[in-house]
Amino acid sequence: MTPRLRRIQSKKDSAVCVGLDPDPDRMPRPLQKRSTLDATLVFCRQIVEATAEVAAAFKLNFAFFEALGPTGFQILGEVARLIPDDCLTIADAKRGDIGNSARFYARSIFDDLGFDACTVAPYMGRDAVEPFLARADKAAFVLARTSNPGAADLQEACTCGDDTVEGSGDPLYLHTARKVAEWSADAPGTGGLVVGATAPAALEELRDACPTLPFLIPGVGAQGGDPEAVMRAAATERGPVLVNSSRSILYASDGADYAEAAGEAARELRDALQSGLAAPDGS
Amino acid sequence: MTPRLRRIQSKKDSAVCVGLDPDPDRMPRPLQKRSTLDATLVFCRQIVEATAEVAAAFKLNFAFFEALGPTGFQILGEVARLIPDDCLTIADAKRGDIGNSARFYARSIFDDLGFDACTVAPYMGRDAVEPFLARADKAAFVLARTSNPGAADLQEACTCGDDTVEGSGDPLYLHTARKVAEWSADAPGTGGLVVGATAPAALEELRDACPTLPFLIPGVGAQGGDPEAVMRAAATERGPVLVNSSRSILYASDGADYAEAAGEAARELRDALQSGLAAPDGS
Repeated sequence: MTPRLRRIQSKKDSAVCVGLDPDPDRMPRPLQKRSTLDATLVFCRQIVEATAEVAAAFKLNFAFFEALGPTGFQILGEVARLIPDDCLTIADAKRGDIGNSARFYARSIFDDLGFDACTVAPYMGRDAVEPFLARADKAAFVLARTSNPGAADLQEACTCGDDTVEGSGDPLYLHTARKVAEWSADAPGTGGLVVGATAPAALEELRDACPTLPFLIPGVGAQGGDPEAVMRAAATERGPVLVNSSRSILYASDGADYAEAAGEAARELRDALQSGLAAPDGS
Repeated sequence: MTPRLRRIQSKKDSAVCVGLDPDPDRMPRPLQKRSTLDATLVFCRQIVEATAEVAAAFKLNFAFFEALGPTGFQILGEVARLIPDDCLTIADAKRGDIGNSARFYARSIFDDLGFDACTVAPYMGRDAVEPFLARADKAAFVLARTSNPGAADLQEACTCGDDTVEGSGDPLYLHTARKVAEWSADAPGTGGLVVGATAPAALEELRDACPTLPFLIPGVGAQGGDPEAVMRAAATERGPVLVNSSRSILYASDGADYAEAAGEAARELRDALQSGLAAPDGS
């Protein structure tokens, strides 16, 4: 997947990933008289149309679609198909199960729903991640250091390294990242990491440890991460990044101009990210 | 949820959890002429009817239903509703996402689909797990030490403990289990652990560390764990266990007697588990 990501990013000069987390309680006012299912589809379509020009990728958060029941799952597929070919589609499903089940999840997400990439949880280890690394045109963004308050509970547990003192004292997120680099070594371009914008030191550390893996970076906007600092810490010639924003784009306005406001918020994010890239200490 | 689990188990004298992983490639011959969707529903209904008498719980593996698309999601709900009230229903969905998304997943699984419990991935920490611990009548079985080959990659990483030397050198699965005990301390009966039957030493260690948490134990049958040894290691007066078997019950026969054979396999598992419980060194 990485070569395609590079082509898209150099065509659009953009690291923006638009996160589609359609919360029924936050629908713009003009959509509130519609049914939740109908409003969700219309809302997502309008956001995609308003932001596709500057979006290098869209990330669909499965929680919000699954909460709508079987029809929500159908809408998820419809929204994925609406996204133009010059944007990557990322299934934010955080899958992680034993090999046999993981193969079924990968088939559903890559083949039936047609996504280009999926977020994957690493706790169950190699056989849970591998089915998502098996195809050159697809990718797994594996959780390394996430942006939420509870991230530290496990991810910052200090590890003693495995079978050797090398790596001793490293936090678990670095251990995880090294495993992902190892698991995807045979299929370059298929492995990536999720690293939150809210932990800039971890971002730098992970970029040093994994110079070529693409990073999917949530946590700017509503969660407080600084777009320019993120680019300085993680975007390099060899290591591409996608910076996700959901709420600050989707809910930029709750009035009739919500789509226009979302487009404007996406352009502002694109510009802020490009400034970070151009900064003197960027690389 | 734990008090209800105890009532069911003492009524049925059973620790059996029947895993519903309906693989389209392994449907019994009499169902092979039906459509996959239809065969899946009929197969699950027959298995539920044949095994409910001895099953303390059913665990539905979401991967196999999601792979069937939106209608698969609908069938998942239908199968969950077919399960009698004297069996727990466990959503094997391995959810794990930031608090906001986790709340949507919990709502979908507990309210819309009506499950009693859900398997949850711990990598993202407390706020990813808490929405599943918030209701006294429900439960989260959090992954601690799983039964798959890749389990060791992260779960056996040795940790240095947090902020203290206590716990130093413990494997990550113990660190995780202690966190789950801590997170569920305010709502006893809502937190549990997934611990694989294939790692008996870890089972004992985890039972010592978490004497009252219920354990959901996969990995007997096709994966090779020994039912009696599992009960001796983990089932105690204060700490209930559910031992899951999927393939060796579902695919006990691929002929016209598949339901009858599944019922027989479930009864045999129940008896093997009860033997472990009654063994002299059981407690």
